[in-house]
Amino acid sequence: MSYFQEIDKIKYEGSGSRNALAFKHYNAEEMFNGKSMKDWLKFSVAYWHTFTMDGSDPFGMGTMQRPWDQYSGMDLAKARVEANFEFIDKLGFDYFAFHDVDIAPEGNNLKEYGANLDEIVGRIQPLMKAQNVSVLWNTSNMFHHPRFMFGAATSNKADVFAHAAAKVKKQLEIAKELGSENYVFWGGREGYDSLLYTDTKLELDNLARFYHMAVDYAKEIGYEGQFLIEPKPKEPTKHQYDFDTATTYAFLQNYNLQDQFKVNIEANHATLAGHTFEHELRYAREHGILGSVDANQGDMLLGWDTDEFPTDIYNATLAMYEILKNGGLGKGGLNFDAKLRRPSFEPIDLVHGHIVGMDTFAIGFRVASRMIEDRVFENIIDKRYESYQSGIGEAILNNKTSFRELEAYAMENTIKHESGRQEMIKGIMNQYILEAGAFAKV
Amino acid sequence: MSYFQEIDKIKYEGSGSRNALAFKHYNAEEMFNGKSMKDWLKFSVAYWHTFTMDGSDPFGMGTMQRPWDQYSGMDLAKARVEANFEFIDKLGFDYFAFHDVDIAPEGNNLKEYGANLDEIVGRIQPLMKAQNVSVLWNTSNMFHHPRFMFGAATSNKADVFAHAAAKVKKQLEIAKELGSENYVFWGGREGYDSLLYTDTKLELDNLARFYHMAVDYAKEIGYEGQFLIEPKPKEPTKHQYDFDTATTYAFLQNYNLQDQFKVNIEANHATLAGHTFEHELRYAREHGILGSVDANQGDMLLGWDTDEFPTDIYNATLAMYEILKNGGLGKGGLNFDAKLRRPSFEPIDLVHGHIVGMDTFAIGFRVASRMIEDRVFENIIDKRYESYQSGIGEAILNNKTSFRELEAYAMENTIKHESGRQEMIKGIMNQYILEAGAFAKV
Amino acid sequence: MSYFQEIDKIKYEGSGSRNALAFKHYNAEEMFNGKSMKDWLKFSVAYWHTFTMDGSDPFGMGTMQRPWDQYSGMDLAKARVEANFEFIDKLGFDYFAFHDVDIAPEGNNLKEYGANLDEIVGRIQPLMKAQNVSVLWNTSNMFHHPRFMFGAATSNKADVFAHAAAKVKKQLEIAKELGSENYVFWGGREGYDSLLYTDTKLELDNLARFYHMAVDYAKEIGYEGQFLIEPKPKEPTKHQYDFDTATTYAFLQNYNLQDQFKVNIEANHATLAGHTFEHELRYAREHGILGSVDANQGDMLLGWDTDEFPTDIYNATLAMYEILKNGGLGKGGLNFDAKLRRPSFEPIDLVHGHIVGMDTFAIGFRVASRMIEDRVFENIIDKRYESYQSGIGEAILNNKTSFRELEAYAMENTIKHESGRQEMIKGIMNQYILEAGAFAKV
Amino acid sequence: MSYFQEIDKIKYEGSGSRNALAFKHYNAEEMFNGKSMKDWLKFSVAYWHTFTMDGSDPFGMGTMQRPWDQYSGMDLAKARVEANFEFIDKLGFDYFAFHDVDIAPEGNNLKEYGANLDEIVGRIQPLMKAQNVSVLWNTSNMFHHPRFMFGAATSNKADVFAHAAAKVKKQLEIAKELGSENYVFWGGREGYDSLLYTDTKLELDNLARFYHMAVDYAKEIGYEGQFLIEPKPKEPTKHQYDFDTATTYAFLQNYNLQDQFKVNIEANHATLAGHTFEHELRYAREHGILGSVDANQGDMLLGWDTDEFPTDIYNATLAMYEILKNGGLGKGGLNFDAKLRRPSFEPIDLVHGHIVGMDTFAIGFRVASRMIEDRVFENIIDKRYESYQSGIGEAILNNKTSFRELEAYAMENTIKHESGRQEMIKGIMNQYILEAGAFAKV
Ligand SMILES: [Co+2]
Ligand SMILES: [Co+2]
Ligand SMILES: [Co+2]
Ligand SMILES: [Co+2]
Ligand SMILES: [Co+2]
Ligand SMILES: [Co+2]
Ligand SMILES: [Co+2]
Ligand SMILES: [Co+2]
Repeated sequence: MSYFQEIDKIKYEGSGSRNALAFKHYNAEEMFNGKSMKDWLKFSVAYWHTFTMDGSDPFGMGTMQRPWDQYSGMDLAKARVEANFEFIDKLGFDYFAFHDVDIAPEGNNLKEYGANLDEIVGRIQPLMKAQNVSVLWNTSNMFHHPRFMFGAATSNKADVFAHAAAKVKKQLEIAKELGSENYVFWGGREGYDSLLYTDTKLELDNLARFYHMAVDYAKEIGYEGQFLIEPKPKEPTKHQYDFDTATTYAFLQNYNLQDQFKVNIEANHATLAGHTFEHELRYAREHGILGSVDANQGDMLLGWDTDEFPTDIYNATLAMYEILKNGGLGKGGLNFDAKLRRPSFEPIDLVHGHIVGMDTFAIGFRVASRMIEDRVFENIIDKRYESYQSGIGEAILNNKTSFRELEAYAMENTIKHESGRQEMIKGIMNQYILEAGAFAKV
Repeated sequence: MSYFQEIDKIKYEGSGSRNALAFKHYNAEEMFNGKSMKDWLKFSVAYWHTFTMDGSDPFGMGTMQRPWDQYSGMDLAKARVEANFEFIDKLGFDYFAFHDVDIAPEGNNLKEYGANLDEIVGRIQPLMKAQNVSVLWNTSNMFHHPRFMFGAATSNKADVFAHAAAKVKKQLEIAKELGSENYVFWGGREGYDSLLYTDTKLELDNLARFYHMAVDYAKEIGYEGQFLIEPKPKEPTKHQYDFDTATTYAFLQNYNLQDQFKVNIEANHATLAGHTFEHELRYAREHGILGSVDANQGDMLLGWDTDEFPTDIYNATLAMYEILKNGGLGKGGLNFDAKLRRPSFEPIDLVHGHIVGMDTFAIGFRVASRMIEDRVFENIIDKRYESYQSGIGEAILNNKTSFRELEAYAMENTIKHESGRQEMIKGIMNQYILEAGAFAKV
Repeated sequence: MSYFQEIDKIKYEGSGSRNALAFKHYNAEEMFNGKSMKDWLKFSVAYWHTFTMDGSDPFGMGTMQRPWDQYSGMDLAKARVEANFEFIDKLGFDYFAFHDVDIAPEGNNLKEYGANLDEIVGRIQPLMKAQNVSVLWNTSNMFHHPRFMFGAATSNKADVFAHAAAKVKKQLEIAKELGSENYVFWGGREGYDSLLYTDTKLELDNLARFYHMAVDYAKEIGYEGQFLIEPKPKEPTKHQYDFDTATTYAFLQNYNLQDQFKVNIEANHATLAGHTFEHELRYAREHGILGSVDANQGDMLLGWDTDEFPTDIYNATLAMYEILKNGGLGKGGLNFDAKLRRPSFEPIDLVHGHIVGMDTFAIGFRVASRMIEDRVFENIIDKRYESYQSGIGEAILNNKTSFRELEAYAMENTIKHESGRQEMIKGIMNQYILEAGAFAKV
Repeated sequence: MSYFQEIDKIKYEGSGSRNALAFKHYNAEEMFNGKSMKDWLKFSVAYWHTFTMDGSDPFGMGTMQRPWDQYSGMDLAKARVEANFEFIDKLGFDYFAFHDVDIAPEGNNLKEYGANLDEIVGRIQPLMKAQNVSVLWNTSNMFHHPRFMFGAATSNKADVFAHAAAKVKKQLEIAKELGSENYVFWGGREGYDSLLYTDTKLELDNLARFYHMAVDYAKEIGYEGQFLIEPKPKEPTKHQYDFDTATTYAFLQNYNLQDQFKVNIEANHATLAGHTFEHELRYAREHGILGSVDANQGDMLLGWDTDEFPTDIYNATLAMYEILKNGGLGKGGLNFDAKLRRPSFEPIDLVHGHIVGMDTFAIGFRVASRMIEDRVFENIIDKRYESYQSGIGEAILNNKTSFRELEAYAMENTIKHESGRQEMIKGIMNQYILEAGAFAKV
């Protein structure tokens, strides 16, 4: 059955197109440095927001109208699988990402849970092969069910820890089976609502134990995907353990997990933590843990995760700059962890949302590529830091000096600064952005 | 003497120019609907940030290096006047704006204060005439001196109220003399640091009394400029009385001042109050009190007024959209209440800052103009609200119905919604923005 | 049937009690200035949070376990009515507050909606009489159903406006029937998600039209309760029209509704708008529109409405200070618009939540009363503003002076300030708070 | 000469005292578990806020009136030394803390800088001995001078790095000479204003190099104090490298500095980073890096560092709880990094500010001590986590299980939760707080 019947395959028509159902900037097969745009960007559909999100919010019930609303239970799960592959085909995706509960009903116990998943996975696998589609990542939802009200691996109850282990074990098996490029942990309830009754030390230790067991089990079954932690500072809990990338990196080092885990950075989580998206990407890149990206955007005047489709060209440009400086994302990709605004309730809005998201990142990619090619920032930085290329600066970088020697040097030398030219640089970036249209031609 | 000797007049070179010291989008004389771009935008230099701001912040001393640093007292004041008119000439401004203390030293008492101002005003006036430059607005600084620690018109001391009155009286006389198009009140200390010791009722009443006296005095001396209040929610005080435009409008109505005052909206103040820039402009426009604009931008992750030069094309576009829907700003204009980042300490940075600001608003102007011409938002809105053009909707708008009738109607009718298409609309706006370059050609 | 069988009537045992199921500070019958504590505080149970809230959040399903979970539809509605009156009895409330959809299922159309409500109201009324309980306020939920996705009175569809009118009409009839002391409007969706497609002018005008019709209908049916608007800045919409009290007051004046409406101030809404709770109360009090209070508290590090039971003694003290300065709340009261934390899922937690809330406000009442009795703030303020009691200050207050005269005065006089002593004053308030225990004795 | 002549030694008079110039809760010599209150709390005067802060803010000049205002240069420096020791004596402090530039003028070059410091240190040392007072910590101000506009150890200029090294070298020598218990680094400018021109990798590497050299030099001269980093997320820079404790811990581990450094946690910095004060203390404590505390408080509705004197009993209680669980602060202490509100400009306000701060922490100490004695939180936590004391829980804690075994266990077992009782617990804490007065008796 077709769920997006009225929609043709979305084509690239260049920046001049006025066709709302066409890409204006995302040209999948266009080559850049020997790699197609599509392989640079590795866009992924987020199964949850696209096929299960219903538009409810804390003050209102669902609004979304979907052609699969007529189904329920396993029938609904199967309909969504079909919808997913049709959508992927029409938009030209190579990847999708999912939680366990997105693709199959949890059932009444772990046995039913496993059986339901097996049946659905059995349907997904041939479609992946047929359409040459991959799983960017899968994960286990350990925040929705009441059993996780105090956390999963960080619950105060050992039984919950065990249940969480069973769920992740199953997901790792599926990851192995479907060849997921990554396995993600987002600790939605791994944190605290109140310090007054929380043994944070025991909980953090347990979280590390859980991750070590996951690594062990992956090795045992021969799963070779990349493990990722997705930081978020808060919501739904008051305070999550994986507050941001730096906090996560502190944790990984402290528990000797830094070689087994990278991070999955979400734009909206970055800003909720008080950082720009590009800050989080930069930090991860420079610390060798940039794994994958949840491409969305937040509303800077709202204090919760709005998970909007990315439309801001500035953010996309600076994000793509970091990703390109990282040499791409490796096993990672750009997953649209983005949902439609509640009043964008028609199925066609799913298409519009993804088109604008893909085009926005394509623009960012084009702009960042050209800026790197022209060494815009690189030349500025080389010049600003050139004092570290020789003399006392070189000695500092080579760890060949000391306070005593530096003092002697400072006694004899005078400091001279040049302006940082932040205003001029922002003007240059605006120019590169406005030229993006000219480079998206058919 | 020349203070910007090495800088030639900044010219428009079109979007393709790579000359950092040229406008790429701001083409002063280009005509739009019978009015030049320059008359649509009415850019103004903010005297304080451009000629007196020294780069100090709460944790550091000044960094700015200026060719007039060698002077002090009245000599410094005179040097700045020359610098102002040279700068205005080189950048092509028609307006500037100032506080009393920006242009002349306060002296040791009100007599010296008046005398110093008179001397400087005597120098400014012929230069204005010679260069055909106007004062967009002037104002009195009633927040810097310790005497204003508890407010000016809202001080707990009647003597401070009187002193403030004397200052504003003098400024109104100067406004009259120089033909200022507007007179602005920003109540930097008109608010409270603590409710525990503040008689907010008496203070608000006094603020209204003060404004009424200002209006009376303007009438007495025949000053016909427009009075403006500039809202800001906080900083330096914990809470300012003119929190935002709506709060100011409540105040104006409550004290019967709504016909005498409009608002001067600053972008960064809008966001500090939890609103977008365009929200504040929209509210002011639709309530008939959009007076003038302080064109700058804030950092959405910082909780204080950063007063950055505007570089964000989205903000500039949506701001210009509101301004154009208002039919322009009338007596108001776009004043760059923007300061260089502390490490942008060289005089040339002043030029870069203003160029990027002017170009950004020129881009915004071009984009918004084209969108209005194409009725992009207007068509969407007409369609969305068409149910109010006839039938029960028309009855509602014409106040010709009642709960009783509406209930009867609702009993018989079914509601049908269409998607708001927010994602698609944002994509369209991105297209218009990316096309801006093509419309800035030489 | 009993739903809180294991719980006895909660008694006052004084501050020394270690009984978790007793009041330590709230002594309902204790007299203060000729009125009992209970009449000063007028506590109200919020029907929704207490009897319908299920603990779900944007990332998780419900957790709450309730003895009425076994029921559904009208049976559930009836069970909740019984639970409400039992709870009210055990905790000693005189008031409750509800939305239409809290007490009865909406049904499939307005007819069923009305019939369901009538049946439940028929059960509520005799219980109110029997237990001598009143409705503090009722309201109509116009945010939960998808039909309100673009607002109710501010929808882009006239049919939605009509439907909203039908709902409010019915609620006003119920208000009349049950003798509700107030009728509340909280415009959860009366605002916008995007300015790009919103006709804010038409929507605001319609909101005013809607309120006028409500006033007219109340008059028509002889309902004499007080109309209240509950401001909130955002959530669920990006921006609500009733952002805060000042914005609401601007609206009321602008549409000539200021004599018909007061505000219902919620603590958590105040802080989301960037104000303290006491600021909003002060503003409302001094502008004559303090109607009623939603007593809860937010988490100052979280950007959404957490609606916690009030436990902060500082907030309660400063709130009660404003309320006492207002001479009490008149028809208004203190409604616990507060919900249990998601992991506080047992029925007994409802009791704990209300006990701590009631005790916290009782403490605040005791502290504020004593501070007012001792004229702590009043003496400070009298002294600080005494310059307005004579001479030039008196002339200012009596509108008998002018800029000209004030200038002359200022020329001759010197300003002298005294410290505001904020630190010392806060220390005094701490003392009063710590003494509260001693005044809650049995 | 006496600067606080009119002030007698501040004495403890118990909670019933109405003497504003007395301690009501801080009873220095009262014993708790074999240690005096004064030794538990180790209060320290912050030299800068108490003797150099002038009340200026970004919009206003200084307001503070001090008896040493008549002096300048080295005379001023000497007067402040006298004032410091008199103040310390009158308030009963054992410690003070300072930046280099607080105690002596920087001079025109490093030589003068050193000479000025030597002279002042020569005056400080005998007074320390005479009054039996210690330095809690000293530090070097590397943010105020324009040379540090791009950072100190993280500057883009090697010459600045060298200058910073010379400054810290000198401070370490002074630390050695005066026996400072700690040496603090607060990286006010160690961060970035813009990622666009910043080589964050080189800068972070250099910061680590700088710290290693500091450790080496301390070892060389035999300085045995504790090294501390004080995290802050932003202000004055847009983003500081030591964002919060977790970020700092990631850095320390990454550069192998975790055994040489602990953190100095400031309450207001915690909240600016999106954490509670107690969160930061807890994280530091459980990671073994809780070094010292800057005791102040912020305004949760203001986005900048307000550095208020601590008056909130809740915060003080939860902070003292963490400190007591840490067994005290070791070499660290409670430093009042707090400044008077700008309108609290009289010298006596310094006394009020410190009295309320000391009393607030004394209350917090008394409350937290009693709660620990009664094992209030400990009993709750023991019960909540008891499933980890045996069976599968014990196996988890002992790293003796695996996903495979946990799955098998989960298949057979059912999860049962108990409420977290957050509301009840907060009520209990309120009771302990209100009883604090009764325990501060003379
Ligand atoms: Co995500
Ligand atoms: Co998100
Ligand atoms: Co401004
Ligand atoms: Co500003
Ligand atoms: Co409410
Ligand atoms: Co609320
Ligand atoms: Co500090
Ligand atoms: Co601070």
